Amino acid sequence: MAKVAIMGFGVVGSGVWEVLTKNASSIAKRAGEEISVKYILDIRDFPDHPAKDLMIKDFDIILNDPEVSIVVETIGGLEPAYTYTKKLLLNGKHVVTSNKELVARHGPELLKIAKENNINYFFEASVGGGIPIIRPLQNCLAGNQITEIAGILNGTTNYILTQMKKYSLSFEDALKEAQEKGYAERNPSNDIEGHDACRKIAILSSIAYSHYVNYESIYTEGISKITKEDMEYAEELGCTIKLIAMSKKIDDKRVFARVSPLMISYKSPFANVDDVFNAILVKGDAIGDVMFYGQGAGKLPTASAVVGDIIDIVKHIDKSYVYTWAISGDIEVVDIENTSCRFFVRVKYKDYTKAKDAVSLIFNDCMIVNTHRPIGTNEFAFVTHELKESEFREKISQLEKISVVEKVLSIVRYDENI
Amino acid sequence: MAKVAIMGFGVVGSGVWEVLTKNASSIAKRAGEEISVKYILDIRDFPDHPAKDLMIKDFDIILNDPEVSIVVETIGGLEPAYTYTKKLLLNGKHVVTSNKELVARHGPELLKIAKENNINYFFEASVGGGIPIIRPLQNCLAGNQITEIAGILNGTTNYILTQMKKYSLSFEDALKEAQEKGYAERNPSNDIEGHDACRKIAILSSIAYSHYVNYESIYTEGISKITKEDMEYAEELGCTIKLIAMSKKIDDKRVFARVSPLMISYKSPFANVDDVFNAILVKGDAIGDVMFYGQGAGKLPTASAVVGDIIDIVKHIDKSYVYTWAISGDIEVVDIENTSCRFFVRVKYKDYTKAKDAVSLIFNDCMIVNTHRPIGTNEFAFVTHELKESEFREKISQLEKISVVEKVLSIVRYDENI
Repeated sequence: MAKVAIMGFGVVGSGVWEVLTKNASSIAKRAGEEISVKYILDIRDFPDHPAKDLMIKDFDIILNDPEVSIVVETIGGLEPAYTYTKKLLLNGKHVVTSNKELVARHGPELLKIAKENNINYFFEASVGGGIPIIRPLQNCLAGNQITEIAGILNGTTNYILTQMKKYSLSFEDALKEAQEKGYAERNPSNDIEGHDACRKIAILSSIAYSHYVNYESIYTEGISKITKEDMEYAEELGCTIKLIAMSKKIDDKRVFARVSPLMISYKSPFANVDDVFNAILVKGDAIGDVMFYGQGAGKLPTASAVVGDIIDIVKHIDKSYVYTWAISGDIEVVDIENTSCRFFVRVKYKDYTKAKDAVSLIFNDCMIVNTHRPIGTNEFAFVTHELKESEFREKISQLEKISVVEKVLSIVRYDENI
Repeated sequence: MAKVAIMGFGVVGSGVWEVLTKNASSIAKRAGEEISVKYILDIRDFPDHPAKDLMIKDFDIILNDPEVSIVVETIGGLEPAYTYTKKLLLNGKHVVTSNKELVARHGPELLKIAKENNINYFFEASVGGGIPIIRPLQNCLAGNQITEIAGILNGTTNYILTQMKKYSLSFEDALKEAQEKGYAERNPSNDIEGHDACRKIAILSSIAYSHYVNYESIYTEGISKITKEDMEYAEELGCTIKLIAMSKKIDDKRVFARVSPLMISYKSPFANVDDVFNAILVKGDAIGDVMFYGQGAGKLPTASAVVGDIIDIVKHIDKSYVYTWAISGDIEVVDIENTSCRFFVRVKYKDYTKAKDAVSLIFNDCMIVNTHRPIGTNEFAFVTHELKESEFREKISQLEKISVVEKVLSIVRYDENI
C-alpha cells in the first residue's frame, strides 16, 4: 500500500483525492498496489468533506512520516510550495505537482535534488492540464531534434477569445462571463496577461531543447487589449485571434520564444480549438508535426495528470528519472526586438486618403484590409509584410507623428502559416 | 555506450538507423550515454549503404553477443519475428518493436517473459507511427477509467479515402495512386481490409481496459467496397467517410469493438484528418476527451517512436515496466450482431415510388436522402435510425426480396456523434 499526502486542497488537490478514491480499484490494478491518501494539508477547514479526518495543518507531520512516500503539491505559487517541496525531496519523498510557476522558476534545482536523492519530481499536470505532453515530449519524442513548439496553453484566455468571436462580445464582457462561470479568477491578470502561458511554454521548451529556458526572458503579451473590432477584422481576413505561446530553436545556443495574441488563418489547426480546450503542436525532424488536444484545465482533467504521475512513481518507485534540461544550463532566448513577423494594425484617421497614403509610404507593400461591412468609425486596418520588431516600432512611431493620423488603435501580430 | 542491433532493414529499420546516426549527439545527451548500432540483420544485401559493414545474416550473432543490450525488431509479421523476440527476451535483451501483428497476437506472452527477465518489450511504434499514444495511455492516463477509444489508425486507407473525397476518384483509382506514391503496398489487403487498424485498436484497447483484447474477436470491415457515389452522398449529408477503429467499455467484463468505414459529420474532429495522418481520441472519466494527431506511418515518424523507446530503456535500463493487460486475462468482445448503430443504404430501384414506400415500411422512421444533384442511375439512399445489426440484416434481406427493388448497392455505418 502506497501512502500519499496532498498539500493544498483547492480545485486540483480535491480533484486528486476524488480520482484516487473513485478509481481506487482500477488504479490499484495498474499501479500494482493500493494507493491511499493519508494526509491532506490545508490552512482552511473542510468540516463537511468526506475526507475531513485526513485534514492536517502541520506540514512537519507529512515531512516526518516515513509511511508517506509520495506528496502531491497542489498549493500553487512560489511559497510555501518551494520550501515544502525542497524539504520533501531532501527527505527522500517523491513530489508530484501541477505548479507551473514553481517548475518554471525552480525546476532545474528541484530536479537536481530529486536526482541526487534517487526519487522523482513529476509535473505532467503543470502544462496542458490533463493532456499528456510532458512525458511524450520527454520520452516518446526524445529521438527527435525538436525544432518548434506552438500551443494554446491557457484555457481562460481561450474561453474569452472564443466568446468574443462567437458572440461579438467586448473583452470586458467576455471576461466577466468567464469569471461568472468560474473559468477566470477574480484577479485574472495571471491568465489574461499571458504569464500562465509563458511559464508553460518555458517548461515545454526546456524539455524540448534540453536546456533551461528562463520564462523571465520570454516576451509576453496578454489579450486584455484585444477588442471586438480586432476580432471583426480577423473574421474579414479569414482569420481568428488566439493567444499563442511558441518557441523555435534557432541553433544550439539560442531559441526564439513569444507569448502573444496572434491573428491566425481559419485553416490553422489551432483555429477550431475553442472554449477552455488546449492544443499543443510539436515539430520534430523525424516525427514531423504531432498535435495534442484536450482540456487544458479543470479539476478532474488536471487531477488525471497528477494521478498518472503518482501511479508511475508507485510502479517504479526505486527509480529516478533523468531530465537533461536540469543539468545542462540555460539556453539564450533571443531579444524579441531582433525577431521578425507580420503585424495587423488599426488606424484612426483624420483624412482617409492621406492617412492611407502615409501608411503605404511608411509600410511599403502592406495590405490594406477591405471589409464587407464598416467596422468602427473613421478607421481602417492593414497588415504589414514581415518586419523586424524594432523596425516595426520605428515605423509605427513615424506613423503616429503624421497629422492626418489620429491614432493607432491596435496592433496584433499576424501569422497565416501557423 | 549502449549497443543496439536492428533486425529487418526495411522502411522502418533503416529509418531507425538514420535517426540514431543523424541525431547521435542529442540522443546521447538525453539518454545519458552514446547509443550505437552494432549489427543490422537482414536477408538482403545492401552493398552501397553507409552501414554496410554492420550487416549480418546470422541471428545467433545478436542473440549471443553480450554487448548488445537492446534489439530493434522491425521485421514485421509473425515469423521469424516471434521466435527471435522470444529468444532475445529469454536471453535478457530488451526488445523494441513496430510490429503490431506480433504485439496484438503474442503481446501478453512476450510481456510476461520480459517481466520475468526484468527487461522491457516496448512497442510505441506499433500504433500511430510516431504519435505518442502507447506511453500516454499506459502512464499519463492511468488514473482514468477509459471508457472509449476511437481513431483513424491506418494511413493508407485514410490517404485513399481522402483522394476519393477531394478528387471524386473511384476506390480503384485512388488505390492505384496510393500504390504509385508508395503509400500502399502491392498487396494492399492488410491495410484496405482493415486488418492493420484492427490490430492497432486491439493493442490500444488492451492497454486502456487493462485486459487482453483479442483482435480476432473484433469485427473488421475494410474500405474496398466504398464507392465514389457513397462519398458523394456523404457530402450531400454534410458528412465524410473514414475508416474508424473504435472500442467502448461496456462493463468490467465486456467491450464493444469494431473497425469499419463510418459516415461521420463534417463537424467531427476526425473529418479533417486527411491524407496519411492518424488521429486517436481517448475518453476517460477524469480527463474527458483527449486527442492525439500526427503522421501515423512513414519511415522517420515510425523510427522516431522506436528511438524514443530505445532512449527510455537506456535511461532506465535496470527497470522492467509492468503492463497490467499482460497478466489479467482476456476481456470479452461482444458479438457485433448484438450491437446497434445507424446505417446508410443505397438502393437501385425498378420503380422509384414503390421502392421508397417499401423502404419506409420496412425501415420505419428512416431518413431518405435528398440530393442537390442526381447521383448514379435509378437509385436513392436512406439512413436508418439506430438498429441492432442482426435486425438490420434481416430488414435488408426483406428489402432485397421485394420486386420493385433491383439491388442494395451499398451499406455504410453512420454515426453523426463521433
